[in-house]
Amino acid sequence: MAPPLYQVVMNTIVDRIASGSLPSGAMLPSETQLGAELGVSQGTARKALMELEARGLVQRVQGRGTFVTVRTPETSLFNFFRLRNPDGTLESPRLEWETVRRRAATPEERAELFGRPESVIEIERVRSLAQRPVTHEVSVVSAALFPGLADRVPLPNTLYVFYQQAYSVIIVRADERLSAHAVSEASAKALGVPAGTPVLEVRRRAIDVLDRVVELRSSQSLTDQHDYFVSVS
Amino acid sequence: MAPPLYQVVMNTIVDRIASGSLPSGAMLPSETQLGAELGVSQGTARKALMELEARGLVQRVQGRGTFVTVRTPETSLFNFFRLRNPDGTLESPRLEWETVRRRAATPEERAELFGRPESVIEIERVRSLAQRPVTHEVSVVSAALFPGLADRVPLPNTLYVFYQQAYSVIIVRADERLSAHAVSEASAKALGVPAGTPVLEVRRRAIDVLDRVVELRSSQSLTDQHDYFVSVS
Repeated sequence: MAPPLYQVVMNTIVDRIASGSLPSGAMLPSETQLGAELGVSQGTARKALMELEARGLVQRVQGRGTFVTVRTPETSLFNFFRLRNPDGTLESPRLEWETVRRRAATPEERAELFGRPESVIEIERVRSLAQRPVTHEVSVVSAALFPGLADRVPLPNTLYVFYQQAYSVIIVRADERLSAHAVSEASAKALGVPAGTPVLEVRRRAIDVLDRVVELRSSQSLTDQHDYFVSVS
Repeated sequence: MAPPLYQVVMNTIVDRIASGSLPSGAMLPSETQLGAELGVSQGTARKALMELEARGLVQRVQGRGTFVTVRTPETSLFNFFRLRNPDGTLESPRLEWETVRRRAATPEERAELFGRPESVIEIERVRSLAQRPVTHEVSVVSAALFPGLADRVPLPNTLYVFYQQAYSVIIVRADERLSAHAVSEASAKALGVPAGTPVLEVRRRAIDVLDRVVELRSSQSLTDQHDYFVSVS
């Protein structure tokens, strides 16, 4: 069965955003222009724009038009870094150290990541809040999708903004599995806490605008002074 | 500043769903009918319906119309019980025991719950998966908003469906704060695990269709055999 027409329109716009031909902040064609260009009704064009807005890819400004959502380090951090003070406020985490290495993909990484990569780049980081290391994380991406990434260290603090600006890879959501465990040996060392300390483990699959799994990330965090905020519906 | 017209239309429909005059599964008026009835354009009526659909309150069925979302114990459990097997599948948790008591609200509960209740009803439960107690949870609701609830024990397994059917309180989302800790003394006893066992603590504020905080819930779960699944964007 062919997909509904508005989805065809959506996919066309998503491709333009992903390829960079519609960059961050650019104004989209009007519903009428879009309809004429793609040979669909104005109602179909409107539905496509509404769906894109619901996914956070574009923003409609009353009386002005529709624009590609601007992702800044601040908005990306707010959306994807979920550790907050008990009152819900967010402090910017400080990057304490990172190591970046290229290595062969494990069978699990090959199976999960888009493109079934032979090689991956692994980014290991420790972040601190209020002068205290709180998160030890390891992110893994396809070396083919992010060519030359290992040579660009030190990497910017906010990886997702960097992925978009340097590689046109736009992460829009992440599936996460959370669990509580005694800290791993590696994270105990990285965070400077004794064996047995309880940590929040988050295993994340980050998904881009083209619905591809583009990053696997595993982190262990101390949550005695911060909480991990999420919303369910 | 007056809210946009489509929001006025949305609120009218939300009130009808919350009051039960549009029950679960009922068909809504068409865009044309709605526009005529409320004196707005068809476009405004359409935008209101699309927003309601995005919030999960109604479902549009191609060629048939728009219907109030049916919430069953299964869909409610799937949406709000987030502990899953490692492969993502959901087992129905078994209710091992519950105690329900009425008591005075703490100052924090009064400040957080809708209506600033003097009295609350506290529902304490242990749930098990695969014959093993995994979650110890305490839910607190306003006694004024849920009259007679304490006399209706045993309560149904799925509280949110019960709230909707018995009290027309429709929970649509929940804000959660997660953290990892050594198990509390009460949860250690309830779950039958030794002191020091790491648990995932979830503190939830459940919000209903009228945007009111109607339930506070705190739980401690064992996550050595299950993960807590969420999505962020």
